[in-house]
Amino acid sequence: MKKAVSLKDIANNVGVSTALVSYVLNGKEKEARVSKQMAAKIRRAAKEMNYQPNLIARSLKYGKTKTIGLIVADISNPFFSSIARIIENKAKENGYTVVFGSSDEQLDKSADLLNALINRQVDGLIVTPVENSEEQIREIQEKGIPVVLIDRYFPKLNTNAVFINNYQSAYNATQHLIDNGYKKIGMVAYQSSLEHMKQRVKGYEKCLKDNGINASKDWLLKINYNHTETDFRDSLNAMLEKNTIDSLLFATVSLAVKSLHVINSRKIKIPDDFGLISFDESDAFDFFYSPLTFIKQNLQQLGSQSVQLLIDSINNNTTVIKKIEVPSTLVVRDSSKKK
Amino acid sequence: MKKAVSLKDIANNVGVSTALVSYVLNGKEKEARVSKQMAAKIRRAAKEMNYQPNLIARSLKYGKTKTIGLIVADISNPFFSSIARIIENKAKENGYTVVFGSSDEQLDKSADLLNALINRQVDGLIVTPVENSEEQIREIQEKGIPVVLIDRYFPKLNTNAVFINNYQSAYNATQHLIDNGYKKIGMVAYQSSLEHMKQRVKGYEKCLKDNGINASKDWLLKINYNHTETDFRDSLNAMLEKNTIDSLLFATVSLAVKSLHVINSRKIKIPDDFGLISFDESDAFDFFYSPLTFIKQNLQQLGSQSVQLLIDSINNNTTVIKKIEVPSTLVVRDSSKKK
Repeated sequence: MKKAVSLKDIANNVGVSTALVSYVLNGKEKEARVSKQMAAKIRRAAKEMNYQPNLIARSLKYGKTKTIGLIVADISNPFFSSIARIIENKAKENGYTVVFGSSDEQLDKSADLLNALINRQVDGLIVTPVENSEEQIREIQEKGIPVVLIDRYFPKLNTNAVFINNYQSAYNATQHLIDNGYKKIGMVAYQSSLEHMKQRVKGYEKCLKDNGINASKDWLLKINYNHTETDFRDSLNAMLEKNTIDSLLFATVSLAVKSLHVINSRKIKIPDDFGLISFDESDAFDFFYSPLTFIKQNLQQLGSQSVQLLIDSINNNTTVIKKIEVPSTLVVRDSSKKK
Repeated sequence: MKKAVSLKDIANNVGVSTALVSYVLNGKEKEARVSKQMAAKIRRAAKEMNYQPNLIARSLKYGKTKTIGLIVADISNPFFSSIARIIENKAKENGYTVVFGSSDEQLDKSADLLNALINRQVDGLIVTPVENSEEQIREIQEKGIPVVLIDRYFPKLNTNAVFINNYQSAYNATQHLIDNGYKKIGMVAYQSSLEHMKQRVKGYEKCLKDNGINASKDWLLKINYNHTETDFRDSLNAMLEKNTIDSLLFATVSLAVKSLHVINSRKIKIPDDFGLISFDESDAFDFFYSPLTFIKQNLQQLGSQSVQLLIDSINNNTTVIKKIEVPSTLVVRDSSKKK
């Protein structure tokens, strides 16, 4: 990479002072009482010399870069890529550019990205934190960098956060399966200490209990985040082989889509022999022969509220922490309706 | 945001010279012949004071930030989010962090992102350029910043680029439909001056011509990038209403998924009454009742080769431009096989 062109280089080239160049390129030529001709000459030189304003220097001066950093857990998951798109649009409306990264559910990648974004002086961060990243988030807060968690949160950490009521959403979905005649309801979730995942499992378990259903341990399949396709297929096949459940609740869209492949290969008949409900949406759910009933998170609200919360936090330098719960709805379709 | 802690602050706190602190925090304590105790004390102070190494300062000194900027056209499109994931993994293997943005097929957003990433001193950029962004890419090259285009490219611009043979891929898919008994083959593409899109349409048109098929103008539907859902549905419905085609080639996965909804609502029977082939993959294609035949781009190669090309370009400061064509294959399934 060539050495960056400085204001001084331009000043030397045009034969004026560096201060004058600075005034002109920062749109303050009136204050410097420079002639229009000279201002034009300086601008032309800056363009010809490929001058690139240094955002970092500018941010040191003005305190803001008008950039938001976004870290999602897995950009190839449509839940996160849809949210990213919404956050970008909302940020753009507010004059912010979003740069983002994907932590791939890995703690070290999350640390790399947080450092990379902070060192690039973003004004604030929106993060879907990975497992055990509580300390990383705490450090960011301690540095005084505005941060909003999205989708996930740490109950013991006092942070801005936007999320759905995971417990109630899972509870309602389970109740819906029971109301539709399913009796032995299983769940596929991630093996995770993350609160949103624990709450989804708890909501499911509590609903079974409240309905007097004695769940067997076999009914809950917990998948490691680092599973391979084969691991996943083998675990789900083993679970289904036991023939102890008549329906399944999927804790995420990625778990559901993978499971649908297995269910198809076993020729299980949905919804007559087996009921299905998943968290989140997918085109795959629409085209599955028995369109899936799903828990629709309000992505628009999740995204917009997190941007709003972050911008408020950036502008007011406020220390008031807000936790916002956005609604979810159960969209009932064929896969959960026994004929 | 609090003021950043400097090396000088740490030096003052510990009571040593700034140079000594710099040596220790840059892992060069041996050169400074500092005692282990003192080195530990300096590190502890840095941690307690929340010292954040300034990557920019470091990059000015060492010339590299070990960060790659990635700009995709639309992160909510699974084609791009899958590629983003592959690029991140490949970059990580090589010690690079990726920060990215989504231009949403908009020229102004693309400019904002390019500026934001360049001003944050990324070592180089991987870009899926939006329509008419040739000048933006040219400017980046003129600044001496390594850049690799992916998926799309500008024929008149001498840039590193990784892409598939779009012309041949479309030609082969069209030929496959003809070989399977379809005679009036339509295409849904984007109205775009981007070369990859033009090549896809050309390959389709040439194949019809080579087979002596006289295509009507009605057979080719060009969709504006800024269409609404309703626009899209109306245009495709109008095309299908004419009843002049017996099959469709979709130029992208997003066009295909939207079209499948329309095709389902019209109760068109695939593949007996109507054949389908799409570029790219989707879970939706797998679960559609007649699984879609698709043109599989080798995403792994697209992603890895672009990272490799960029890193080579960063390390060697080379001016040799490479254009790499990666293979695509037609994955034949039910949707293109007339019974």
